[in-house]
Amino acid sequence: MRTSIATVSLSGSLTEKLTAASRAGFDGVEIFENDLLASPLTPEEIRARCADLGLTIDLYQPMRDIEAVPAEAFARNLRRARHKFELMRRLGADTVLVCSSVHPLAVDDDALAAHQLRQLAELAQESGIRVAYEALAWGRHVNTYTHAWRIVEAADHPALGTCLDSFHILSRGSDPKGIQDIPGEKIFFLQLADAPLLAMDVLQWSRHYRCFPGQGGFDVAGLVRHVLHTGYDGPLSLEVFNDVFRQADAGPTAVDAHRSLLVLQEQLGVADPPAPVVPTGVAFAELLTPDAEPVAAVLGALGFARTARHRGKPVDLWQQGAARVLLNTSGAARRDGTNLAAIGLESPDPTGAARRAEALLAPVLPRRRATGDAPLDAVAAPDGTELFFCATDRPELPDWRADFADIAHEPAAAGIHRIDHLALTQPWHHYDEAALFHRSVLGLHAQESVDVADPYGLMRSRAVTNPDGSVRIALGVGAAPTDDTAHAQHIALATDDVVAAARRFREAGGRLLPIPANYYDDLAARHEFADGELETYRELGILYDRDAHGEFRHCYTLTVGRVFFELVQRDGYRGYGARNAPVRLAAQHTARAVTGG
Amino acid sequence: MRTSIATVSLSGSLTEKLTAASRAGFDGVEIFENDLLASPLTPEEIRARCADLGLTIDLYQPMRDIEAVPAEAFARNLRRARHKFELMRRLGADTVLVCSSVHPLAVDDDALAAHQLRQLAELAQESGIRVAYEALAWGRHVNTYTHAWRIVEAADHPALGTCLDSFHILSRGSDPKGIQDIPGEKIFFLQLADAPLLAMDVLQWSRHYRCFPGQGGFDVAGLVRHVLHTGYDGPLSLEVFNDVFRQADAGPTAVDAHRSLLVLQEQLGVADPPAPVVPTGVAFAELLTPDAEPVAAVLGALGFARTARHRGKPVDLWQQGAARVLLNTSGAARRDGTNLAAIGLESPDPTGAARRAEALLAPVLPRRRATGDAPLDAVAAPDGTELFFCATDRPELPDWRADFADIAHEPAAAGIHRIDHLALTQPWHHYDEAALFHRSVLGLHAQESVDVADPYGLMRSRAVTNPDGSVRIALGVGAAPTDDTAHAQHIALATDDVVAAARRFREAGGRLLPIPANYYDDLAARHEFADGELETYRELGILYDRDAHGEFRHCYTLTVGRVFFELVQRDGYRGYGARNAPVRLAAQHTARAVTGG
Repeated sequence: MRTSIATVSLSGSLTEKLTAASRAGFDGVEIFENDLLASPLTPEEIRARCADLGLTIDLYQPMRDIEAVPAEAFARNLRRARHKFELMRRLGADTVLVCSSVHPLAVDDDALAAHQLRQLAELAQESGIRVAYEALAWGRHVNTYTHAWRIVEAADHPALGTCLDSFHILSRGSDPKGIQDIPGEKIFFLQLADAPLLAMDVLQWSRHYRCFPGQGGFDVAGLVRHVLHTGYDGPLSLEVFNDVFRQADAGPTAVDAHRSLLVLQEQLGVADPPAPVVPTGVAFAELLTPDAEPVAAVLGALGFARTARHRGKPVDLWQQGAARVLLNTSGAARRDGTNLAAIGLESPDPTGAARRAEALLAPVLPRRRATGDAPLDAVAAPDGTELFFCATDRPELPDWRADFADIAHEPAAAGIHRIDHLALTQPWHHYDEAALFHRSVLGLHAQESVDVADPYGLMRSRAVTNPDGSVRIALGVGAAPTDDTAHAQHIALATDDVVAAARRFREAGGRLLPIPANYYDDLAARHEFADGELETYRELGILYDRDAHGEFRHCYTLTVGRVFFELVQRDGYRGYGARNAPVRLAAQHTARAVTGG
Repeated sequence: MRTSIATVSLSGSLTEKLTAASRAGFDGVEIFENDLLASPLTPEEIRARCADLGLTIDLYQPMRDIEAVPAEAFARNLRRARHKFELMRRLGADTVLVCSSVHPLAVDDDALAAHQLRQLAELAQESGIRVAYEALAWGRHVNTYTHAWRIVEAADHPALGTCLDSFHILSRGSDPKGIQDIPGEKIFFLQLADAPLLAMDVLQWSRHYRCFPGQGGFDVAGLVRHVLHTGYDGPLSLEVFNDVFRQADAGPTAVDAHRSLLVLQEQLGVADPPAPVVPTGVAFAELLTPDAEPVAAVLGALGFARTARHRGKPVDLWQQGAARVLLNTSGAARRDGTNLAAIGLESPDPTGAARRAEALLAPVLPRRRATGDAPLDAVAAPDGTELFFCATDRPELPDWRADFADIAHEPAAAGIHRIDHLALTQPWHHYDEAALFHRSVLGLHAQESVDVADPYGLMRSRAVTNPDGSVRIALGVGAAPTDDTAHAQHIALATDDVVAAARRFREAGGRLLPIPANYYDDLAARHEFADGELETYRELGILYDRDAHGEFRHCYTLTVGRVFFELVQRDGYRGYGARNAPVRLAAQHTARAVTGG
């Protein structure tokens, strides 16, 4: 289907918005009146710019407070409409949005509304324009799509149809099934937005918290199914008012927006991108560092051994059980030190996974490889993390391990058998995008977002996982743009005995994050422990939580650069210790203050 | 009355919070459990730190989900309580907050609730502790203060009382009058918070949007009046959950918080700071600049004449009618260029105004003056702008003009007669504080906050004015911390004929901000104008608005450093052209892109 986006959904000047929409692959745009007013381009120039960019102008919007008003006010409205129809002629736009009135003078009189909308449509028809009448969720008298349709039906004019907007319908809890009773040719336009399920005033909700389909809690696909059933053949158009998107770069937002429509069309069965290839495990985590020594020391103390070295690049493989960490000291390291730069995901079909990622607009990374290197497919996540699709130890497929030469080493295992989860910090503007990306591109399942109190602001965190939990990525974000880099990334390592692993780490010279004694006094108040157990936790800095499925014990190393490690023992527990996160975050602030790190 | 603040209201580590509360003049604190758990200090050390800082620990909080639960769950609760009472003994805190239960197992049984709370109080009494039972607005069965009080009354135990929280009472729309039916000695604690009037889920509202009394829409003073009527003699304590305060520096937030309680006590008649001295006009606006030439050129073209020079400092006075602008080229100018650094306010009693400002915790500025200079009282606003209290041409008072020596000059008036308003950009964290400051310290009236769409994000703006409109200050803030300096400050100059003033400015070589033609096409659609009028506006870049009181015509100079000028002709109109702000902001972005400024 054709795709379109309202200019209000993107940040910047009108020309920035148009460029971003075109580059992301949209077919058309809705031009929002304020964007036109603020543009130095004439309507003719805007039309030409859109044509150059391969964009049609699918809608001009909005006209407000038109119908069911006293005759004198309506005469003024027609005068305004004549101006706007002339403007639309210059723009080359043939459909105008009319929102149901919120005017204090509007009366509750469907016959009058139909009569006046018919007059407006008559005037529009003279200019070759169609009027799409939409029920605002907070319209004064008309606020449901069924009511708007009754009025359009009564007006019975070929240049008058209805516009459906998923937000206005679903935010009120209206049943979208009734859409099927509207003839498709009378649905002049379809605007799509999702939204988180918030209990708040619907006007504020609409103006500040809309998001792209799949990023919120609405069943947008269900609604669109009803629309398609009518025979509607207009575009799927995104109209998203969102405070964050207003500030974010238009380019990535437009890509994110277009991806949401691709996924929606896949759900609807009207598009057929390559099927998702769900990853089956974590092949490796790659740390980029200007200086390998501090991280190597931590890895060594954790019981990892340096088992191999890349044949052509300064990259070492550190391993313990199935937990693999690559230490990369090539030049691209950030000045602020060690960071988690790439993740290798075990994939049943690496090439298929990359094809899907590319079809869903993920940036495919160039294969900067030497001759003879194993070909390895990789894409960039919204936060810049490189994701490699790997087939470790599967002889029929290229193996990234083949690029590494083994090193003789002492096995020094300390009971760590795999990577439990990875925690990535998302740029503030791309938190919603990140969840949709990991879900749609990688086929992971996104869990609920939780708020976590840091001493210096609220963080949000959301995990994405594969079905058996062998891939778990926690996506975190600070409370404000200034926090982008305030919170470290980390690698959590699974062990069956966190106490033993922590002791071995300490004995090997590692330093664990000290946890305040008050935390343990509170644990004692909340739970009963075996004799000596709590003292052990207190001594080592081990945190404790439980859920309906089991117990969780975990502890942390100090931070190196932007990265730290966590040792986790999950005995059935399914979460990530969110309850303990405020204490951990505060302890990290304290540790930084002490070490100056 | 004694004042107190919950540690959750401030940002940072526990010790940062305590220090900030003490410095701002609070008598005590409520210690929030998570702050204690996350602190490396032992309870004894926290107690000692508070004592050193002159703070009492007025409340430990909270205990949750205590009452009206099955016997087994209650036994666990008593076990937890024993631990917490022991902790409170070590802390030296004698009152604990118990919030009404939200536990899924809690039953709707007041008798059981009273019975269990009585048992808890019995246990508390053994440790010399009082239990303050509070109805959460979203409590499962108990969510009104009257209900909580009925249960406390039924339990009838000397160590059990109630805690009142203005948020929980006023957010539900409960009538606070019923408070007077509670004996004051049974009100163990009073927590105060204001909040903007939002229609949203009360739990989210409470956890993210509380603010200090006077910053929101609640009648907090009305509620406290009812409480004082009961004979309550405990502290006024602020418990404010606010996402912005969580990130802001604790120091200024604590000062802001304490100021809100001083103003509240004044409203209640229990404190008596020096009376407000409302300013009666703008004496001058002072621009600090590293290079006077660009601003001097704009002022000259606007028809200002350089009329005097400071006797001891590199400060020139530019004047036209009663509009005065000081150009200060002393060394302290910001590297990013010209900015609006100070405002002179005409004051009927400059010394009295300064005394009130000081009593309300405004930083009093040192009088760095040469011998012989007129003494001039000044304080710093939350955004750092210096506010001088002036008496221009009033022989009985020191006159700042006396420090200036007249310069022979050509009068070059262009119809500007005074400063209409000043627009200041507030640091993101201090927007609410700024409005309270200008209202309480200066005695100005704060208007409603409005949202304005900038191409790169939403701005908010709020005006404060004196009764006759001769002092108007527009306080603006960007949508996020990164926008702190994105938006310029400006000086709006009043004229009776903006067209003539704009023409003269242009003829004198000044450059006006170009406004897109599309704006004028829209004006033509919205209003009818006399022949040629719109063409004149289009030619000059004059914007137009009207309200119920009259018409408004205004235009803008290009920006110099961070400052620009506006010419305004208000014929009865009372606003600030907010409707035109998106177009103006976009035009400024365009102009910056063109000029590279």
